[in-house]
Amino acid sequence: MMDSPSPAFRVIGHKIPKVDALAKVTGRAQFGADAALPRMLAGKVLRSPHAHARILRIDTREAEALPGVLAVITRDDFPEIVPGTPRAYATATAHDRYLSSEVMARDKVFYHGQAVAAVAAESEAIAEAALGLIRVEYEVLPHVLDAVDAMQPEAVRLHDDLYARTASGRETTPSNIAEHLEMGRGDTATGFDEADVIVERTFRTQVVHQGYIEPDSEAASVQEDGSVVVWANTQTTFSQRHDLAMVLDIPLSRIRVVPTEVGGAFGGKESVRVSALCVALSRKAHLPVRITFTRDEVIRATGPSCATVQTVKIGVRNDGTITAIQAHLVYDAGAYPGAPLRSAIRRVYSHYRTPNLKIDAYDVVTNKPKVAAYRAPGATPTCFALESLIDEAADAVHLDPLTFRLQNVSRDGDLMPDNVILPDVSFAEILERIRHHPCWTTPLAGPNQGRGLALGMWTMPGGTTSCHITLSADGSVTLVLGTVDLSATRTTLAMVAAEALGLEMEDVRVVVGDTDMVSYCDASAGDRVTYITSKAICQAAQDLLDRLKTRAASEFDVQPQSVQYDRKRFWVEADPEKSITLAELALRTIRGEAAVMGYASNSETWSTAAIAPNAAAHVADVEVDPETGDVKLLNYTAFQDVGFCLNPDQVAGQLQGGATQGIGWALSEGYLFDGNGAVRNANLLDYRLPSAVDVPLIGAEMVEVPSADHPYGIRAVGQVPIVPPAAAIANAISRATGIRPDELPMTPERLYLAISKSDFTSL
Amino acid sequence: MMDSPSPAFRVIGHKIPKVDALAKVTGRAQFGADAALPRMLAGKVLRSPHAHARILRIDTREAEALPGVLAVITRDDFPEIVPGTPRAYATATAHDRYLSSEVMARDKVFYHGQAVAAVAAESEAIAEAALGLIRVEYEVLPHVLDAVDAMQPEAVRLHDDLYARTASGRETTPSNIAEHLEMGRGDTATGFDEADVIVERTFRTQVVHQGYIEPDSEAASVQEDGSVVVWANTQTTFSQRHDLAMVLDIPLSRIRVVPTEVGGAFGGKESVRVSALCVALSRKAHLPVRITFTRDEVIRATGPSCATVQTVKIGVRNDGTITAIQAHLVYDAGAYPGAPLRSAIRRVYSHYRTPNLKIDAYDVVTNKPKVAAYRAPGATPTCFALESLIDEAADAVHLDPLTFRLQNVSRDGDLMPDNVILPDVSFAEILERIRHHPCWTTPLAGPNQGRGLALGMWTMPGGTTSCHITLSADGSVTLVLGTVDLSATRTTLAMVAAEALGLEMEDVRVVVGDTDMVSYCDASAGDRVTYITSKAICQAAQDLLDRLKTRAASEFDVQPQSVQYDRKRFWVEADPEKSITLAELALRTIRGEAAVMGYASNSETWSTAAIAPNAAAHVADVEVDPETGDVKLLNYTAFQDVGFCLNPDQVAGQLQGGATQGIGWALSEGYLFDGNGAVRNANLLDYRLPSAVDVPLIGAEMVEVPSADHPYGIRAVGQVPIVPPAAAIANAISRATGIRPDELPMTPERLYLAISKSDFTSL
Repeated sequence: MMDSPSPAFRVIGHKIPKVDALAKVTGRAQFGADAALPRMLAGKVLRSPHAHARILRIDTREAEALPGVLAVITRDDFPEIVPGTPRAYATATAHDRYLSSEVMARDKVFYHGQAVAAVAAESEAIAEAALGLIRVEYEVLPHVLDAVDAMQPEAVRLHDDLYARTASGRETTPSNIAEHLEMGRGDTATGFDEADVIVERTFRTQVVHQGYIEPDSEAASVQEDGSVVVWANTQTTFSQRHDLAMVLDIPLSRIRVVPTEVGGAFGGKESVRVSALCVALSRKAHLPVRITFTRDEVIRATGPSCATVQTVKIGVRNDGTITAIQAHLVYDAGAYPGAPLRSAIRRVYSHYRTPNLKIDAYDVVTNKPKVAAYRAPGATPTCFALESLIDEAADAVHLDPLTFRLQNVSRDGDLMPDNVILPDVSFAEILERIRHHPCWTTPLAGPNQGRGLALGMWTMPGGTTSCHITLSADGSVTLVLGTVDLSATRTTLAMVAAEALGLEMEDVRVVVGDTDMVSYCDASAGDRVTYITSKAICQAAQDLLDRLKTRAASEFDVQPQSVQYDRKRFWVEADPEKSITLAELALRTIRGEAAVMGYASNSETWSTAAIAPNAAAHVADVEVDPETGDVKLLNYTAFQDVGFCLNPDQVAGQLQGGATQGIGWALSEGYLFDGNGAVRNANLLDYRLPSAVDVPLIGAEMVEVPSADHPYGIRAVGQVPIVPPAAAIANAISRATGIRPDELPMTPERLYLAISKSDFTSL
Repeated sequence: MMDSPSPAFRVIGHKIPKVDALAKVTGRAQFGADAALPRMLAGKVLRSPHAHARILRIDTREAEALPGVLAVITRDDFPEIVPGTPRAYATATAHDRYLSSEVMARDKVFYHGQAVAAVAAESEAIAEAALGLIRVEYEVLPHVLDAVDAMQPEAVRLHDDLYARTASGRETTPSNIAEHLEMGRGDTATGFDEADVIVERTFRTQVVHQGYIEPDSEAASVQEDGSVVVWANTQTTFSQRHDLAMVLDIPLSRIRVVPTEVGGAFGGKESVRVSALCVALSRKAHLPVRITFTRDEVIRATGPSCATVQTVKIGVRNDGTITAIQAHLVYDAGAYPGAPLRSAIRRVYSHYRTPNLKIDAYDVVTNKPKVAAYRAPGATPTCFALESLIDEAADAVHLDPLTFRLQNVSRDGDLMPDNVILPDVSFAEILERIRHHPCWTTPLAGPNQGRGLALGMWTMPGGTTSCHITLSADGSVTLVLGTVDLSATRTTLAMVAAEALGLEMEDVRVVVGDTDMVSYCDASAGDRVTYITSKAICQAAQDLLDRLKTRAASEFDVQPQSVQYDRKRFWVEADPEKSITLAELALRTIRGEAAVMGYASNSETWSTAAIAPNAAAHVADVEVDPETGDVKLLNYTAFQDVGFCLNPDQVAGQLQGGATQGIGWALSEGYLFDGNGAVRNANLLDYRLPSAVDVPLIGAEMVEVPSADHPYGIRAVGQVPIVPPAAAIANAISRATGIRPDELPMTPERLYLAISKSDFTSL
């Protein structure tokens, strides 16, 4: 049993500045590139100039002979991983299959920019020069960049041994399709028969980068006994350790992963693409090695989000009831399988009730960089398609988009596409709130303006987090976390510890431990950290208090159950005169009594559950310049059910930051590939992240419907704000111009061309 | 209940190489001077040129104006500590009284070399130059270097507010005596009346340094919010944190102390004399600061061991029974109170039974560096006096020294001088072993040779140690310690974890955490670490196994009590077919189940107890050159009751290393002061540590009488080997020459002078 917190929270729910703010603004915080050891070498990566080619030979002799070069590595330094065969750490699983290849190309390169060799040298200049001395002989192969093209039987095949996984097993003919995922219920044919109106459209979206400002920068030092220390600007120390053990074929226990501060990640920093190279180079050079990617490398050769081609069809009755939804969704994984189909689809296609649902989704490989997670992985483009078509459906039955949505949104107990029951989801509450909100009721002020609405939803993905809390002699505590802080989670979690322990914020020191210091934690990703860890902290706090109650009980010669605690004081329930302070008990731990620590690990079912759904809806007002196609965002308001706001400033920041990234998806971000499969805009001038001038002050409107399964009722808040923006803005543009955008990003060029072909000539 | 280990231990008791050996020999291990941060400044200390003086004024303006100087600090940067008054961390206690003064002189300097100011600058050269620009105006005062002189009423007084603590309270007249400690029992007057023979002699010993090879080198970085990170080559991270909080008047929770590797300490690295300067400089300079002492500074201005003047008197009956022992012991604390009286006396004066014992011991301040602990603090000189006089007493009643000792040594249940009962002490077993050992039975081979014997004894001092053990996905574990490793304790403790968990050594990763990562631990000092921590590890291992048994039990739907564990496998006792491996359970912790950790903190009563006494006796053969007074050590054998050898090589190393340091005390080490109170031999050429040519291969003869209060029966082994050497060698010299050495070190000069005045003209 938890000691229940006071009805009025003293710490949580209040606006508390980030504990790391000062270190960040003064430059003291240590990021990946700050890792520095004596005689550390600079590493550089040689990259493929072809999108698809067989590597016939790599001659590194000249590079190795260059003075100042201490190591050159190629595929030969990374033993191939074959699922089912034993490695030093454990038997390789299907999960591990492409880990080595994603670090360094093996027999073939699959995308322009893929790593082919790497050099460690005394300076970056020498390393760079050495790259030029590595001779690689390629047999260039035809390549395929479009996922729909890649699905065709006659398409050039990337992998000889890739067979599509299906519901019934796997295909017998190899192809570029890694998975065919089917979800649904009912019978869509019947559903469409029952419909009065059917709308259908195909949408395309491009590869988008997470746009983290800090480039990938990691370092490694391999000791003479083969043990490894890695400094990583990673989201996930423990799975880095796992992946490094697999890729380098060394025991797990030989690897220590030390997290640095992370200057943005958003799903993009879970890979060992940098650290594994550092380790392999350090192992060969016998010196520490650091690699810092250039922005060009970050864009060309890390893991961006997937491109999609989605055809969606919705049937509606004239009364506004959706009778069927059908979707054919193609997700472009890039060079190796693994586009985020399931995570996106099961949530986005939970927005609306329909008795008949059929989804066919495909994970397809192409000659592009292998995709990775990006905030609410896959959901932004998936939502763009569905929520655009929902607007069309509303129009088709002459209902306003809010009313139509309110009529069809999922409610408590409705099914997700994978038939998991959706608990307490607040779409209806949010839509009711919007209906009366000025962002919806205030009329648009000028011509060429439109207002768009779109929903989004995320559920907490599950996983494991551990923490421990030590008690210092002055009665203050140190909260030791194993989860990397990407978004002020340290601050929020310290608040939870303060609240649970009846302390003030200044009594709680919070630190992030490396893999040697803390118990296992899954990645800081997918909205897991605050939700799962705050539960673990409540348990660890209770563990600590229970141990202290036992001490207090023996002081007063009573049973531990009769000891009460609140606000730094223990007392005997039946005799409150008998009391002792936390500080008094704490002081004894350095004066002859054992020390006291609280520990907990919390695990929540992975991915298949529907934990703490956080529903959102965004409202965007735009003005479109018919002369140029330029879209100006006039107003933007993000509504979200956050359950309970642990730290209102930080939660608002999540809503605003996520929406801003979604605005990037909507209006400006997207990879451009040339005929050779090379990224043409691999720099931050040509790859246009939204900047302050592009984004209005985003309204953050928080609904607080406590989630049932959390002691403080919080919901995970960070993912969903990126989900609705592209759809909300597309719907606004459509209402401003009458043009239905069917491709992201909705750049001025693209809109200008559409406008030229349309009736939209206003002004 | 502990799962009892297999009768034949698989890991402990075996010779296992140090886990840190490779990092040490390859230079990868990070010591104090390896702490490096961007823009780190070099710190230098200005030291007093007087042994005793009032500081009238300090003018730092010129130094501050020197380009490249970023901070100059003086006494003004260290708020005075007044016991009983509140500080940011806690109310200051008597323990804290001199903490600030020991870092930086306040109104007076008390010894030649005391810190008066410090500078942080962009280079050591600039810092050095700045020291020359600091103007200090002194009023020079008379000084006193000899402790007996300092005790006289007319002596110059160092501190105006120092009143001797006595058994009955404290003296009312201030003096240079900080404490008058009385111990004993019976009535010595009666005892001496009953004696047939009385021997009495006064012995003198000098200040000796711990002689650690790595100079003091620490670094600090103070953040803008006032929080502090310290990298310290310390024995004790947590008490550094305490002392820094007191000295700098900041909350405990604002300080993180990160231990580096330590290149020798032996009691000498428990102070904040370096780190507090670094912090104060960094706070002012707003940049990280590192200070590395020169060898001159290490010798002149750290904490060596105390000088002593001891008069001991023993009464013996002709049958060899000791009737009384009386001792007047003066310990020279240096500039501030705190010589190690009690710790030494209660153990050394436990060697022999006597019904009548009277000890008067004095802690006296003089104008010398403030002393600190040095391996078995105070016991080497204390033992030198007692065991020398025991040999004289044996001679006086015509008994050989072994027989006389065997007749009088303490046995189980005898009293220590502080009337604590001494449990299972093995003096008699050891002496019986020596009686039949070649080192005692083989006749001496030549002229001018002598053989000496002396006893020693130590008891574990108590304290608190904590640890936690995390389980990795491959079934390996990480043992996280908070105690700094000074003597291969990491290796031995990893062995204990492996044994307790049924693992192999390669399954156990062992690391030392900083104050942020682990629960409270007392200093790595006084033989505490292995003894106390190994108990904590057994408890933490049991905690971990219990948690895993609960998992296994739920797997098989049985009660946890019915689950057995051995060697990486859990099974149901009644149905051994039902079994699951540790690795299988471990893997689940990254696949949807919570992580698992074991934790324990173990606390043993401080200092007043008599835990696990480890008795020792050393036998030395010497040859004295009558022409030069040079002593050559021919053979040396150390006998010791180690209880149980966890790692025989390491235990033997402790015996040999301790004996070698004791040989330094005996023959060559000692501070020489000039008339101004300056140390004349503050370098390793003139301050003579024993080297390989001075010391024969030391025989390590281990007796294993298991201690009752430890699961593996170990005793704490590191302190006592330094205790007997000076006495054993003095006894050997006496038997070779007929001259009774009464002063340490027994240098050729001193012996030559004694020989000139004696009958010893052999050859």
